[in-house]
Amino acid sequence: MDIHQYMHTLGRQARAASRLIAAASTKAKNTALTAMASEIRKRRAALIAANGKDLAAARAAGIDQAMLDRLTLTEKGVDSMAAGLEQVAALPDPVGEISDVRQRPSGIQVGKMRVPLGVIGIIYEARPNVTADAAALCLKAGNAAILRGGSEAIECNRQIATCVHAGLGAAKLPKSAIQVVNTTDRAAVGELITMPEYVDIIVPRGGKGLIARISSESRVPVIKHLDGNCHIYIDDEADPAKIVPIVENAKTQRYGTCNTAETLLVACHAAKSALPAVAAMLAAKGVEMRCCAKSLALLSAAKIANAKLVSASEEDWHEEFLAPIIAIKIVSGLDEAIAHINAYSSAHTEAIITENHSNAMRFLREVDSSSVMVNASTRFADGFEYGLGAEIGISTNKIHARGPVGLEGLTSQKWIVFGNGEIRS
Amino acid sequence: MDIHQYMHTLGRQARAASRLIAAASTKAKNTALTAMASEIRKRRAALIAANGKDLAAARAAGIDQAMLDRLTLTEKGVDSMAAGLEQVAALPDPVGEISDVRQRPSGIQVGKMRVPLGVIGIIYEARPNVTADAAALCLKAGNAAILRGGSEAIECNRQIATCVHAGLGAAKLPKSAIQVVNTTDRAAVGELITMPEYVDIIVPRGGKGLIARISSESRVPVIKHLDGNCHIYIDDEADPAKIVPIVENAKTQRYGTCNTAETLLVACHAAKSALPAVAAMLAAKGVEMRCCAKSLALLSAAKIANAKLVSASEEDWHEEFLAPIIAIKIVSGLDEAIAHINAYSSAHTEAIITENHSNAMRFLREVDSSSVMVNASTRFADGFEYGLGAEIGISTNKIHARGPVGLEGLTSQKWIVFGNGEIRS
Repeated sequence: MDIHQYMHTLGRQARAASRLIAAASTKAKNTALTAMASEIRKRRAALIAANGKDLAAARAAGIDQAMLDRLTLTEKGVDSMAAGLEQVAALPDPVGEISDVRQRPSGIQVGKMRVPLGVIGIIYEARPNVTADAAALCLKAGNAAILRGGSEAIECNRQIATCVHAGLGAAKLPKSAIQVVNTTDRAAVGELITMPEYVDIIVPRGGKGLIARISSESRVPVIKHLDGNCHIYIDDEADPAKIVPIVENAKTQRYGTCNTAETLLVACHAAKSALPAVAAMLAAKGVEMRCCAKSLALLSAAKIANAKLVSASEEDWHEEFLAPIIAIKIVSGLDEAIAHINAYSSAHTEAIITENHSNAMRFLREVDSSSVMVNASTRFADGFEYGLGAEIGISTNKIHARGPVGLEGLTSQKWIVFGNGEIRS
Repeated sequence: MDIHQYMHTLGRQARAASRLIAAASTKAKNTALTAMASEIRKRRAALIAANGKDLAAARAAGIDQAMLDRLTLTEKGVDSMAAGLEQVAALPDPVGEISDVRQRPSGIQVGKMRVPLGVIGIIYEARPNVTADAAALCLKAGNAAILRGGSEAIECNRQIATCVHAGLGAAKLPKSAIQVVNTTDRAAVGELITMPEYVDIIVPRGGKGLIARISSESRVPVIKHLDGNCHIYIDDEADPAKIVPIVENAKTQRYGTCNTAETLLVACHAAKSALPAVAAMLAAKGVEMRCCAKSLALLSAAKIANAKLVSASEEDWHEEFLAPIIAIKIVSGLDEAIAHINAYSSAHTEAIITENHSNAMRFLREVDSSSVMVNASTRFADGFEYGLGAEIGISTNKIHARGPVGLEGLTSQKWIVFGNGEIRS
């Protein structure tokens, strides 16, 4: 069977299974999820052995250390994978929820029912835990899924697939509800994203290059974010006590996450009092500061110990550094801050630090990003922190789901009408 | 300026205007809408004269009568266009609505704010009223719009654009918030659907060919429906008194609308008692019946006066007839009905006629269409009937907006966080 036929077979099977999963009871889905968790714990040794084979092959292929770290599955990793499945089982089932029912003058009652999307394709890199996490979220939201993990994790993913299928079997749900692509042929991705008859939505998780390619070639809607170029704006009326802790947390807690702040905007009247303290904290942590002309002059004059001050280029305002580097710009005030963010941001997450109510509300309303915050660290942009229980990713799309995507983002709403023989006049 | 440059200029202007419209007050938007309505009434004669030029050119070009009918703007048409603008002004403003605010253990409060999508591209055929309707809905939902109407209506659309711009001017809103493409060059459509940097969503309104082409070539998400192959399922436990009125209304009230029923499914135990009366009504109205083998045998034996009975082909189950033709199939019961619908339907609107509560609820849950109804005519699938106040179209997409799309479908929700200096631990 060639790859086209193979992927279309998976697609056909997924579409058929999606009907059964959409109609499955909450109890059956939860039974499957908890049985998957037990199976994963039971097969801990086999999972780690399979991961060992993947790691050996990856080392032999000269894969870099960062990718080896992501690929590695420890005993603790196996346990947290199992615990993640049980956490999803404990979440409320979004499917079938009826809301907004209104009586219409014609006599009908019109409302909405939350329904699964159908078949979800997940494309991700060599992180074994994503296989279990994605399977759980798709299943709980009533969807079938086709999972395409990085080829470096193929042995481990096959073992996880065995556990997932055992769990589905224990709940008498069709095994083709969750299918793991069982080939390392890269053409599988190209097929998966061009089967709109079988796949309703694609969720890519991975590097920017992967996501950009999938977005541009997909014939199926894609829930994605490309970049996390997040901003913090220090307003003229910022509470001085809040500035350093928020910037420190947003920039330095983790350099490599998408909700890390990359650009700091400072209102000109606040700059002189606020910026040196911020820069001292950044300097102490070894964070390079790429500064506009005004902030460069101000911070150079402040003579902060160990400060790495660099003149910012136009590219720096666009950049997601994912590193101990931050861009700093002094702006005239709220209007320029909002304009800068809407021009340069990747529409992920932005925060204002201010005590001024009107400025806070304008910032919330006018900044066009998936998460907008007042007096809080951008690091909070996360499904768990928002109370979604789990997340499949963070979307910077403007339609359907923006920001952290949990179970609700993997569903849609249809209209339902309760009548008693009404006809339209 | 070539067409690429021209469309990119419109796009750039729309993006800039969208920031201002997103932040505009409800009062300013309503002032603009009511001023547009006054302007349209004031320029009634000029609008009809411009429409006369369009009609003369269309007749000279040998355009068919159906299109001439759609193109024609009467005095009454002008008045209802103006009234439509006022109706949109009277609708509640969806933008800025804050909902679902929850306190999180970290101390932050997380909620959602309803926000405009940004820039909407509308592509439609030669119906002058769509220019005013689409402008009104996009503006009220806080979006900028680029409107590309059928080239046959260009003179009239230019006049409507003048009225729209006068209204925007009266409210001190930027005129580039609503731009009407001022060229009949067909390449304009190709440009409009491939400018993701300036256009956030495309809404095509028109024939199946236009929509299919736009969907396949667009690099921007498209809100669309291709077909309205709607089904009515007469359950074993249908109330006999409800059957004929619902089928009559759903099939024969208007043959050419997307929410007209095209296939009738009948449970086998109900067929003998229910189907002859339905067929007699259809025969009296001259509706051709394309029947499965069983229903053909049953209805042939019933010897109904003037019944046009034809043997159904496989294609008939897929077909949106838009004509006095209906496909009829006897099924074994609810399971086969749901399976048939999910296999052949265009996922627009389906109805069950039944007194059985469990069957009704299973049908609502398991039929995967944008509107699913119990004991009501499919003709109710409509933004006004559902209480949306107005609609930009009906979506059979699975993500973002399904079914009738009103103001809410032209918006999205972003996450907002209210903090007091919180940092993530």
